[in-house]
Amino acid sequence: MEIQEIAIEDLDTKSFTEEKISEISTTVGDGLAINALSGGVDSSAVTMLAHKALGNRLKTFFIESGLMREGEPQRIATLFRGLGVSVEIVDAKNQFFDALKGATDPEEKREAITQVFYKEVFGQLVKQNNAKYLLQGTNYTDVEETVAGIKRQHNILEQLGIDTEEQYGYKVIEPLIQLRKSAIREIAKTLGLPEEIYNRPPFPGPALAARVIGEVTPERVEIVRGATKIVEEELSNTGAFQYLAILHEDRVTGIRAGKRDYGLQIEVRCWESKDAKTGSPTTLPYDVLEKLAERVTGEIDGVVSVTYSITKKPPSTIEAI
Amino acid sequence: MEIQEIAIEDLDTKSFTEEKISEISTTVGDGLAINALSGGVDSSAVTMLAHKALGNRLKTFFIESGLMREGEPQRIATLFRGLGVSVEIVDAKNQFFDALKGATDPEEKREAITQVFYKEVFGQLVKQNNAKYLLQGTNYTDVEETVAGIKRQHNILEQLGIDTEEQYGYKVIEPLIQLRKSAIREIAKTLGLPEEIYNRPPFPGPALAARVIGEVTPERVEIVRGATKIVEEELSNTGAFQYLAILHEDRVTGIRAGKRDYGLQIEVRCWESKDAKTGSPTTLPYDVLEKLAERVTGEIDGVVSVTYSITKKPPSTIEAI
Repeated sequence: MEIQEIAIEDLDTKSFTEEKISEISTTVGDGLAINALSGGVDSSAVTMLAHKALGNRLKTFFIESGLMREGEPQRIATLFRGLGVSVEIVDAKNQFFDALKGATDPEEKREAITQVFYKEVFGQLVKQNNAKYLLQGTNYTDVEETVAGIKRQHNILEQLGIDTEEQYGYKVIEPLIQLRKSAIREIAKTLGLPEEIYNRPPFPGPALAARVIGEVTPERVEIVRGATKIVEEELSNTGAFQYLAILHEDRVTGIRAGKRDYGLQIEVRCWESKDAKTGSPTTLPYDVLEKLAERVTGEIDGVVSVTYSITKKPPSTIEAI
Repeated sequence: MEIQEIAIEDLDTKSFTEEKISEISTTVGDGLAINALSGGVDSSAVTMLAHKALGNRLKTFFIESGLMREGEPQRIATLFRGLGVSVEIVDAKNQFFDALKGATDPEEKREAITQVFYKEVFGQLVKQNNAKYLLQGTNYTDVEETVAGIKRQHNILEQLGIDTEEQYGYKVIEPLIQLRKSAIREIAKTLGLPEEIYNRPPFPGPALAARVIGEVTPERVEIVRGATKIVEEELSNTGAFQYLAILHEDRVTGIRAGKRDYGLQIEVRCWESKDAKTGSPTTLPYDVLEKLAERVTGEIDGVVSVTYSITKKPPSTIEAI
């Protein structure tokens, strides 16, 4: 099936949401559906569409993969409970870290996450809940990049020839698959989600695993989680499209208390972009860059060096993994 | 022996050069001395001091380690021949690359280079020329950083307890060991060296091997040599203390002609510093950063990402290795 993009100019948000709510309701029928909420604009919009379509016949889960940002599971669950959506947090940390053990190649890491997410975690949740459908927030850029062979997005299944019903025991519903991020923000706003959600910078499907070069261990995720918190605190007021911290595997020589310290490097990226298709580095003032470097090297043990990405997409991509 | 620094404020360049010329002459006596010229301000100043002290009794060599910048051996030899100093280029590329094979730890790489330089190459040159002395441009910061355990500078021998006469068959003379870089620039000027030399940005002893994270192979040096050329062309007019390109071992995802390209990353550093003891990143305008990234990713095969270091020294060091 060829997916057709709906450009933001051609989008009537009100009729689109009504149409999707009706479609979801018809497809799921009397059955149950489950969905995974990460707090990103895509999964949040899908959660609200499905909630409006299915009410109690929807079960929403937040998967605590151990790869999320600090405090995120609780914050997102609380926010959605406030909107009338009941969210259950599922602890799957051990499953994810076990699957990631020893994996260093980006595609291998992405595949490990996909398997745990769709097969182990959702396979089990669907069975437990006797559901037949998984709703998810796949968008047009995800499809495009995966099909073009740029980056395997973890949520792309059908377009890669994966029969989810046969392999995982459920069908996938993707109401946003024709939209790019900017259009999805409009839908989220229309659905009554707060600005914190509809203006939320993109965050990758593999979460902080996409921000660790080399092996993803609980310790290395903890380092990049700390750097992410600092980067988000310092750059949230820039209005940039996305900002992120990447933990490198390479070590570089540093100096601490007058002694050699062969330490870690964090790369910061901050993007100007409309749709993630192309992007350029935000021209951050040097006092902002300086403060970022001082906080990251000062607050995170072992980090001696911070860089800022100055490359456009292409030839860079938004994320490093 | 405790080395005493001579601060630039206390330096009388004329009497210092006269004194050193006389000391070199007395120490070497009727014998022969050799020295290694790299074209940096330190080895250039030593070459001129020794040339004035010894005339024909000095043999000056440029060691082509395969780790130098593009065209450097010929350019430096020609420049010094124009000043009346005969320079012989010694091809030691295979020796250096053989010694570096498989080495990834920075200190292991530095040690390999030290051994080839002092034992293999100079041990042989001293014997062939029947010389007893090697003159070299060790400066006060080199001593300080090595003794403090920050970074093993390749030219530090005696201060680490190495008896060069016993181990390599020659004694070392270090006329500039009490001076920091800024004072050495004054001496170089006093000795009549051209501005290209006395204002030359520092370049590390291990040359481009200090700019390659991970294994140093001819292919990887070629990549960082290309990036170095671009960085020097674009930043030479900034008046910065030093600017450099580092080839990382980590790979990052990029995109070329619409397809995934899991490629290389180059880190650029540009420093404001007086004496290399401390430093801060130059606040380069974003159009300069953008051009750097475009040229490096456009002109050097396999590079998909360029970063700029935003960390001060400390906790960074000037070089990454």
